[in-house]
Amino acid sequence: TPVAAPADLSTLKRIRRELVAPPYVHDHEQVVTGAPRIVEFEMTIVEKEIQVDDGAYLQGMTFNGSIPGPMMVVHEGDYVELTLINPADNMLQHNIDFHAATGALGGGALTLVNPGEKTILRFKATRPGTFVYHCAPGGPMIPWHVAAGMVGTIMILPRDGLKDHEGRPVRYDRVYYIGENEFYIPKDADGNYKRYADVAESYPDSLEVMNGLIPSHVVFNGAVGALTGDNAMKAAVGEKVLFVHSQGNRDTRPHLIGGHGDLVWEGGKFNNPPDRDMETWFIRGGSAGAALYEFLQPGVYAYVNHNLIEAVNLGATAHVMVEGDWNNDLMEQVLAPSAIAAF
Amino acid sequence: TPVAAPADLSTLKRIRRELVAPPYVHDHEQVVTGAPRIVEFEMTIVEKEIQVDDGAYLQGMTFNGSIPGPMMVVHEGDYVELTLINPADNMLQHNIDFHAATGALGGGALTLVNPGEKTILRFKATRPGTFVYHCAPGGPMIPWHVAAGMVGTIMILPRDGLKDHEGRPVRYDRVYYIGENEFYIPKDADGNYKRYADVAESYPDSLEVMNGLIPSHVVFNGAVGALTGDNAMKAAVGEKVLFVHSQGNRDTRPHLIGGHGDLVWEGGKFNNPPDRDMETWFIRGGSAGAALYEFLQPGVYAYVNHNLIEAVNLGATAHVMVEGDWNNDLMEQVLAPSAIAAF
Amino acid sequence: TPVAAPADLSTLKRIRRELVAPPYVHDHEQVVTGAPRIVEFEMTIVEKEIQVDDGAYLQGMTFNGSIPGPMMVVHEGDYVELTLINPADNMLQHNIDFHAATGALGGGALTLVNPGEKTILRFKATRPGTFVYHCAPGGPMIPWHVAAGMVGTIMILPRDGLKDHEGRPVRYDRVYYIGENEFYIPKDADGNYKRYADVAESYPDSLEVMNGLIPSHVVFNGAVGALTGDNAMKAAVGEKVLFVHSQGNRDTRPHLIGGHGDLVWEGGKFNNPPDRDMETWFIRGGSAGAALYEFLQPGVYAYVNHNLIEAVNLGATAHVMVEGDWNNDLMEQVLAPSAIAAF
Ligand SMILES: [Cu+2]
Ligand SMILES: [Cu+2]
Ligand SMILES: [Cu+2]
Ligand SMILES: [Cu+2]
Ligand SMILES: [Cu+2]
Ligand SMILES: [Cu+2]
Ligand SMILES: [Mg+2]
Ligand SMILES: [Mg+2]
Ligand SMILES: [Mg+2]
Ligand SMILES: [Mg+2]
Ligand SMILES: [Mg+2]
Ligand SMILES: [Mg+2]
Ligand SMILES: [Mg+2]
Ligand SMILES: [Mg+2]
Ligand SMILES: [Mg+2]
Repeated sequence: TPVAAPADLSTLKRIRRELVAPPYVHDHEQVVTGAPRIVEFEMTIVEKEIQVDDGAYLQGMTFNGSIPGPMMVVHEGDYVELTLINPADNMLQHNIDFHAATGALGGGALTLVNPGEKTILRFKATRPGTFVYHCAPGGPMIPWHVAAGMVGTIMILPRDGLKDHEGRPVRYDRVYYIGENEFYIPKDADGNYKRYADVAESYPDSLEVMNGLIPSHVVFNGAVGALTGDNAMKAAVGEKVLFVHSQGNRDTRPHLIGGHGDLVWEGGKFNNPPDRDMETWFIRGGSAGAALYEFLQPGVYAYVNHNLIEAVNLGATAHVMVEGDWNNDLMEQVLAPSAIAAF
Repeated sequence: TPVAAPADLSTLKRIRRELVAPPYVHDHEQVVTGAPRIVEFEMTIVEKEIQVDDGAYLQGMTFNGSIPGPMMVVHEGDYVELTLINPADNMLQHNIDFHAATGALGGGALTLVNPGEKTILRFKATRPGTFVYHCAPGGPMIPWHVAAGMVGTIMILPRDGLKDHEGRPVRYDRVYYIGENEFYIPKDADGNYKRYADVAESYPDSLEVMNGLIPSHVVFNGAVGALTGDNAMKAAVGEKVLFVHSQGNRDTRPHLIGGHGDLVWEGGKFNNPPDRDMETWFIRGGSAGAALYEFLQPGVYAYVNHNLIEAVNLGATAHVMVEGDWNNDLMEQVLAPSAIAAF
Repeated sequence: TPVAAPADLSTLKRIRRELVAPPYVHDHEQVVTGAPRIVEFEMTIVEKEIQVDDGAYLQGMTFNGSIPGPMMVVHEGDYVELTLINPADNMLQHNIDFHAATGALGGGALTLVNPGEKTILRFKATRPGTFVYHCAPGGPMIPWHVAAGMVGTIMILPRDGLKDHEGRPVRYDRVYYIGENEFYIPKDADGNYKRYADVAESYPDSLEVMNGLIPSHVVFNGAVGALTGDNAMKAAVGEKVLFVHSQGNRDTRPHLIGGHGDLVWEGGKFNNPPDRDMETWFIRGGSAGAALYEFLQPGVYAYVNHNLIEAVNLGATAHVMVEGDWNNDLMEQVLAPSAIAAF
């Protein structure tokens, strides 16, 4: 294939972003001025066993040690330059396919690293939106590595920030990244989850469960309870919170119990006007979407995949603790639960 | 939590709506003038066994005795005031979570009633659209009560009525509410559906089937055939019919065989412009959507979940009987089925 | 039912289109001027065994011998006149339900042909978009015939062609039709796929697998590998390719690895503005959608259902071979995979 001359990027400013573990997101500007930049990221691939629930262990594969991988944020027109490291103590080949990138299988064809190797990929962030990235090392390794946890998201903001359905600027006060994954953990003849010595040993059984298409677990951020209790997200009445939600493989339908999506980019792409007032929104398997909500009431909110079996029994529940004053105009308990006989 | 002073609603007019069983909807105005009102509803929770198909019985839980629960209709800005009654002869705690409401888990946190109790919840209908309500009494009770039938819909109309994709007013001549539910009825070792003495006895087996995510039945209005034959919906050529479709837990894709969605609010929220000309529309699990169709031909229409296995073999089929004159311009049988040899 | 007088179509021009096997599409204009035409098509139903994968055989039923059936293209306002032939050596009754048509179960009620019969149906193409057609011969025959392969698509173009999100005309340089089907091929006690003498013999076992809702295969164009290797689709950098994707029964989520949907009509209906920049788009089971992409980089692209288990392990993968020059501005391999120690 003939190759066009490389663009001369030597005049562009470089910045380096340190990635943080989800649901948190590294510092970033919502609006930028000036020329596009080259934004450098670094991720190390970590193969490790992960406790997904009581008695349930996944031979996991991760970008940077977390499931999902960390969220990257850049702006439209920026160049993403990722250093991807596969340490020598891993067993498997890995790579990275950015749905935001153009060509070479999203970068997958240029980044296949053996244990002990690293690679650097640069791509231009041409389309504003939230996009999944994932490992895709070829053939049946692709669904397996994704099902083992190698999925994350990049958010490419418009240079002048997000806009509502009428094109007016909107800002968020907080952003959380919820990565939903479904796991296919094999069971033994007694119905107990099996545990394996390493990723390779887990493959044949896992493949059989995967091919049946029914997961054993559906979780946010890698484990049942990863975003509840002490790990709950936080917000306050009057704050606008952007929830970015990815699913690398299987459809899901986020819902905020007691709240809404004020502005929802279901497909995640910011050139499209957002939908308003959504009760539940749909994330196509293999994509990331975004929902903005201004909290209006205090209390505990559950943020769930609204297949409630998947939410409650298989694990896909997070919590948001919201501070502030209750508004009786929006909702009031006119009569607390009381004996019927009293009336 | 500090509490804001209650809004003074004493000047607002109160009206009381008597709920009716789906697919019918109580009388209501499509357009209103004047100040918001407080709209009073009352629902009684009924636990009862329901015959879902020949030889298949569900230990059902219902709002007001029907699956789905009745549809409520109010207008944007109105206050919904629901009295929820859990009679003493029920076995279980229940509550109600309105996706249309704001705060307190959609009201679920304020309405948990034991058998023998009642409660009154008021919330402001701030967002126009169709929204699911359902029971959500906590933990694994949530998916179980939903899968047992405790799901309904509220429609919040814009005060000046529905509008098309260009903002022009549209009216409907009829409205039907189709509630789709999927059931997970356990089988015995011989493959026959099991029957239980009461809801509690049905729980352990049902939980196991539910967690496998494959339903035994997918039905409209609580049973195979609930909306066919004598129970078919009716319409006439030239009438505009609004079909409101809910699914509390699992995605579905309504389709009207031989017809279309002229204007479809897939997500159900009327602040968004509707999609046009849809062949099949998608209802995210845990939401309600709406499709408006003007019938152009007479005859029997099947209204289905267009996973045709779910429609035909698992039960998700309704019928609409449409009166009027056939239009040969739109469709003509040029040659009736005839022996090939004849030509 | 009273019947309106037939429209007099005698003044309209007739043209005849010869259908071609997918992923190819018969010659057609993207923009037309002048009066609507009557467009004649002919399809023969073929029941035959099809090898779906190594060792996996489907007792298939097809429109014109291919799975999916051929794509038809007409323009809004045209009349579609289809001759449907059920040869005497078939075993079963068949018919055709066009989602694009109005009334009579989409034509299904007028076209039920026994082996040895033919029929002619005419309908007016009133709504621009991509629409599924399928066999729907009644009761449990409906999902079975669809699951056996009897699904295709008609594309009804606006007379003045496709338009982007701002109403500007867009043209495509190529169009491909990808029909996704899921199969439910029974296994014997040893876990090997069973093979049957004829369609009738395959029915009872197939019904049981179908009703479990988990397919054995999810494929494009009727078989694993039908659109890869020598059968890959082709394109060139700078070409705009329209990918029409149908699924007659089960939801899917197309994704072009390394590419995007520049303009996506997810629901497939051209009166709606397309979504932009999509990474993955959603085809509701029982519908066809369309995505336009201008290729910007050369190489091999995989076009997949982005449930990656379904794509890789169950078969839903196609390839597009794209010629042209690589653009290092969009993506560059800054450092090829190299030993970590070297740095
Ligand atoms: Cu990997
Ligand atoms: Cu991907
Ligand atoms: Cu309940
Ligand atoms: Cu809910
Ligand atoms: Cu057929
Ligand atoms: Cu159909
Ligand atoms: Mg780091
Ligand atoms: Mg709510
Ligand atoms: Mg979008
Ligand atoms: Mg909507
Ligand atoms: Mg839309
Ligand atoms: Mg021919
Ligand atoms: Mg139709
Ligand atoms: Mg890509
Ligand atoms: Mg559309």
